[in-house]
Amino acid sequence: MIDLHLIGIGTGNPDHLTGEARRAIAQADLFLVPHKPGKSDLADLRTQIIADVRDDAKIALFDMPVRDDSLPYLARVDAWHDEIARIWADTIAAHPDARTVALLVWGDPSLYDSTLRIAARLQPAPRLHVVAGITSVQALTAAHAIPINTLNAPVTISTGRRLRDHGWPQGCETLVVMLDGECTFQTLDGDAYDIWWGAYLGMPEQILEAGRLSDVSARIIKRRAEARAAHGWIMDTYLLRLRA
Amino acid sequence: MIDLHLIGIGTGNPDHLTGEARRAIAQADLFLVPHKPGKSDLADLRTQIIADVRDDAKIALFDMPVRDDSLPYLARVDAWHDEIARIWADTIAAHPDARTVALLVWGDPSLYDSTLRIAARLQPAPRLHVVAGITSVQALTAAHAIPINTLNAPVTISTGRRLRDHGWPQGCETLVVMLDGECTFQTLDGDAYDIWWGAYLGMPEQILEAGRLSDVSARIIKRRAEARAAHGWIMDTYLLRLRA
Repeated sequence: MIDLHLIGIGTGNPDHLTGEARRAIAQADLFLVPHKPGKSDLADLRTQIIADVRDDAKIALFDMPVRDDSLPYLARVDAWHDEIARIWADTIAAHPDARTVALLVWGDPSLYDSTLRIAARLQPAPRLHVVAGITSVQALTAAHAIPINTLNAPVTISTGRRLRDHGWPQGCETLVVMLDGECTFQTLDGDAYDIWWGAYLGMPEQILEAGRLSDVSARIIKRRAEARAAHGWIMDTYLLRLRA
Repeated sequence: MIDLHLIGIGTGNPDHLTGEARRAIAQADLFLVPHKPGKSDLADLRTQIIADVRDDAKIALFDMPVRDDSLPYLARVDAWHDEIARIWADTIAAHPDARTVALLVWGDPSLYDSTLRIAARLQPAPRLHVVAGITSVQALTAAHAIPINTLNAPVTISTGRRLRDHGWPQGCETLVVMLDGECTFQTLDGDAYDIWWGAYLGMPEQILEAGRLSDVSARIIKRRAEARAAHGWIMDTYLLRLRA
């Protein structure tokens, strides 16, 4: 039975790495590093983080499969996870000496990340170890120096897709939106919410905007499009709060 | 104008410390460390974390004021924050050479923590810097090796008080409950939920329980009471998920 370590590494700032993550990186026999076409700087950043901890790491780069857009959303994600799990299994089988295998995960492996679901497909099942990492939600609130919650009030974390399909959650005061490629905040009443937005959080390229949604919405959309064009990719997150 | 660094240090595992937190600790001129009567091992843990990074730190221990239980909840918290801010201001004023002041915060300064609200009361206003830290929510999901969310579904984070006063949030599938001294999960239908519970998360004393709420509820209550009696204090968190 192999040990599989899913290591949260934060949002691209090497200083987000915890002592626990460094230790897990130092002890792994093999690293599986996904390579997304067009996002090679992200794969490079992962190998750089490993190289900062040790110079003798064995790294198996693998190409991420492409999602089948002809399938409905959940079936598409399901088939994609099956395919990634097959690639992991083949890669691990090709390295029979590796007893401790590691994957570096952006943010935290528990939050809107698929590695735990993919790992659950592996046969024989590995012994799973999860190392928590700083999420983009935390990098966002830290950069803006704001609390995520108001006093004794709940917070909901959700996705852009969910906000688009279901609207503002009932009874919700604070909503954090992740994985939103479409600036879904545009669908809301701009005078009813404040927004704190950030892209490339924790990285040198970090961009922040905050204010009443109606005041800053257009500016965020413009800056996001420009930054995406300049860098070739973007990762952003935002927090919306119902105005008092 | 002083620089005030609110440094998230994780949940009591020194290995939760990020590189960013270590750097902030290394650069501070003065540390304000609260001392809660009866929780001296927590103050000790903070000074130990500082000592692991440097041996020349100037530490100002201060006694936490006692909350006035005669006031209603929000007014009580408000008055308490005012009083803590006065103590911080006095302590900072007593160290005029300290330009960079730091506070170590359990978990992350953004999540159910009062330091940002207290810092906002300081006059003159300091330059605020927040360093994100691993929260007990992340330590919980990492220890159980579970995702916090189901596929594309939202997650709500709330408090025990809120669950007691308002019940299960409408439309919610996954609820994380923090700051619950009363095992408020007892008020729910035990057959409708699964629970993942943890105490002293990330620490050597860590205890975990998971299962259908009706199966493990009594066991959690018993273990929690025993552990609290043994250690003199307890910090615990849990995740509830509506059963399919």
